[in-house]
Amino acid sequence: MAEPRQVGPSNYFNLKDIGALEPEHADLVRRRVDVLGPAYRLFYDEPIEFVRGNGVHLYDVKGQEYLDVYNNVPCVGHAHPRVAAAIAAQAAQLSTHTRYLHRGIVEYSEQILATMPAEIGHIMYTCTGSESVDLALRIAKYHTGGRGVVVTRNAYHGVTTEAAAISPSLGGLSSLPEWVRVVDVPDARRVQQAGHDDVGQWFATQVRSAIGDLATHGITFAALIVDSIFASDGVLSDPMGFLKPAVDVTHEAGGLYIADEVQPGFGRTGSQMWGFERHSVRDGRVIPDLVCVGKPMGNGYPVAATMMRPEVMEKFGRDLRYFNTFGGNATAIAAAQAVMDVIRDEGIQANAAHVGEYLRAGLRQISAAYPQIAQVRGDGLFIGVELVVPETGEPNETLMLQLVNGLRRRHILIGTAGLYNNNLKIRPPLVFSQADADRFLTELDATLAECVASR
Amino acid sequence: MAEPRQVGPSNYFNLKDIGALEPEHADLVRRRVDVLGPAYRLFYDEPIEFVRGNGVHLYDVKGQEYLDVYNNVPCVGHAHPRVAAAIAAQAAQLSTHTRYLHRGIVEYSEQILATMPAEIGHIMYTCTGSESVDLALRIAKYHTGGRGVVVTRNAYHGVTTEAAAISPSLGGLSSLPEWVRVVDVPDARRVQQAGHDDVGQWFATQVRSAIGDLATHGITFAALIVDSIFASDGVLSDPMGFLKPAVDVTHEAGGLYIADEVQPGFGRTGSQMWGFERHSVRDGRVIPDLVCVGKPMGNGYPVAATMMRPEVMEKFGRDLRYFNTFGGNATAIAAAQAVMDVIRDEGIQANAAHVGEYLRAGLRQISAAYPQIAQVRGDGLFIGVELVVPETGEPNETLMLQLVNGLRRRHILIGTAGLYNNNLKIRPPLVFSQADADRFLTELDATLAECVASR
Repeated sequence: MAEPRQVGPSNYFNLKDIGALEPEHADLVRRRVDVLGPAYRLFYDEPIEFVRGNGVHLYDVKGQEYLDVYNNVPCVGHAHPRVAAAIAAQAAQLSTHTRYLHRGIVEYSEQILATMPAEIGHIMYTCTGSESVDLALRIAKYHTGGRGVVVTRNAYHGVTTEAAAISPSLGGLSSLPEWVRVVDVPDARRVQQAGHDDVGQWFATQVRSAIGDLATHGITFAALIVDSIFASDGVLSDPMGFLKPAVDVTHEAGGLYIADEVQPGFGRTGSQMWGFERHSVRDGRVIPDLVCVGKPMGNGYPVAATMMRPEVMEKFGRDLRYFNTFGGNATAIAAAQAVMDVIRDEGIQANAAHVGEYLRAGLRQISAAYPQIAQVRGDGLFIGVELVVPETGEPNETLMLQLVNGLRRRHILIGTAGLYNNNLKIRPPLVFSQADADRFLTELDATLAECVASR
Repeated sequence: MAEPRQVGPSNYFNLKDIGALEPEHADLVRRRVDVLGPAYRLFYDEPIEFVRGNGVHLYDVKGQEYLDVYNNVPCVGHAHPRVAAAIAAQAAQLSTHTRYLHRGIVEYSEQILATMPAEIGHIMYTCTGSESVDLALRIAKYHTGGRGVVVTRNAYHGVTTEAAAISPSLGGLSSLPEWVRVVDVPDARRVQQAGHDDVGQWFATQVRSAIGDLATHGITFAALIVDSIFASDGVLSDPMGFLKPAVDVTHEAGGLYIADEVQPGFGRTGSQMWGFERHSVRDGRVIPDLVCVGKPMGNGYPVAATMMRPEVMEKFGRDLRYFNTFGGNATAIAAAQAVMDVIRDEGIQANAAHVGEYLRAGLRQISAAYPQIAQVRGDGLFIGVELVVPETGEPNETLMLQLVNGLRRRHILIGTAGLYNNNLKIRPPLVFSQADADRFLTELDATLAECVASR
């Protein structure tokens, strides 16, 4: 298939359409562009001004309610009272850094490490997923003495210079430095269509070839990094276990496997707490050398972390320091602790599994009526719905944009994913209920019908 | 002078001394090392467990009060009630990102840009100073097409891969990539001792030579980045205006000048809101192309930003996107807005100017009795006191460590700065009063007397 015509999601507001907005919003958008400049984007044909959130709902400035099927950061629900109260209490008491002793960070660290394989022994705190990925790469390169990194074709791993350098979804292939190699995405449906039975072996072959190409160019291999649910590649979940052969190839070549759990982590996939665990079901366990977590960790408070096998940290810890001023501060930890408590006490992961399964069943039912839906993928409340042109099987970005903006008009918030922006990205707050799923399915069906009828 | 014997500040707890701690603290430190690993450090011979803060005071787990003369992040005072209330209210309402419209970010942006020179027209939000510096470098490199960066000998600009690459204070000179050039620090006292009258011209000559060396090696010059108060280089404040010639040299060579205001910004220097403005007093104005802010911006909430002349952003904004999930979220902005309101309403900058002057006068009075004090430098509440061996004029790190730990035993929190760790780094919360200054001066004098007597 050809290169995509535009890099990154495309459901953005176009400034040329500012005349179509209500005068008050047009004015706010103009002032915003004046101060924030040209790199900021707004979602939808008609941007929304939100002023309040609660659970899976957001409320605009006129008090109108929207169902949030998109935002993964507020994992336990927008403005969860228990998390907000923990932040409020700690911010009013103390918010200082990790060069003083604080009990909270030790207790939280012990708890989160207990959810990891026993091999993962240390945690280091940052403020964003980008910083966590950046730190993981620093450690991986320092430990291996190499610099070669292998990523997937439409990977997104963050926005620092180093994280952007391994994120072809941001600037396309031409933006990548000479030490990055890109492999095709392990999209089981397309891989099998191309005649390969075993997507795991096929993916491992791609990774082996990329590592070989690094060696040919004199670049020592440092790491394979993948988002465990391949979100920006279009949400690639199955078959469970397919990642294992590629991780084995990575280790055989002396590299480290970095699990980017910024999107799938904290129970979103339902079947497991962490996305990489989904790949431990077949011929052995998958144990990452480094794990990056972020987005949902503080339900919106900027807190993130990198976890690791102690061996890979030894040399870095001996030779260098790492101090992140806000990373692991007392309020960040209070927020993260409250999120973890809510995940446990409110059965968040089980809800993700249960409602996710219900939602996928509903989506498959809808898909029977629409040849435009090629596949429903995902696990828990991370779901991708792939749209194609029925006649050709080509990606259908046009329909996707109609659908996203049509749903927005019906007060359903949703986004896109994948190299061709033709996957509906479904990843609501994890308190999404069966009733919320029903409402979404009803509106999706109606909007699809409209879109298809209007062609 | 020789290479420093250790990279970075040295007033850290040594794990070998764990036996000397109270059993309960020894246990907490052991658990902490187990989970956080070897890269984390604790301050002081005897680390402190803080549980509460208020204004310039911190309270340990036994309820003992400490005077904070070190922490610059809580600029309007630890746990300021107005900032804590703003965070609490917004976190309980909405904490979402910049792809929806939100009035708060537009209003705050207009206010902070109004404190900048008119040439600085855009602001982009991140979560940490490191991310802001990293973004500034990405933009500078993209705009100029170059990659050469010039920094000072003991510069610290952050901990992402890219920010650490321009921070010799972290890993020493041998850690720097081939596109970084280091210049000697513009320490007026030492430069004049070496026979150069004009520190500004001397510094500009160093920068010109570094740019020339980049060109010799085929590396296009992108930027000069300096902390406007040269904090990690030992707090180099005078003479005001000395930075101007180096900025002119930078612009003549087609490079950009990045002002790292993460430490001096938000009124800390008293005489001005931003550190670079201190250098506009002689032969014309100093206008940065990019400005990085962070630490005190949210009084402890992770919020930071990069501001810029719109011209340098044009190409980046047209070709690339930048989205920082937590950057500029509604709660981050609420915290930053409250800090700005308090700075204005409580006369924070004027207090920094007034108490800072009083404190420097008191330090100079003390210095008359101690030949170990070579110089008192600084502006507002950012002050460096340089300690030397009287007989040789060499840096006196031994005395510095005795002093820092001696003050800690007297419940005064202070740190060190400079290539040789021989500068007392004085940068308390900006609500530091004249009475706080008196208390600090009394304890400093007594501790110095003890240290000198014990030799």
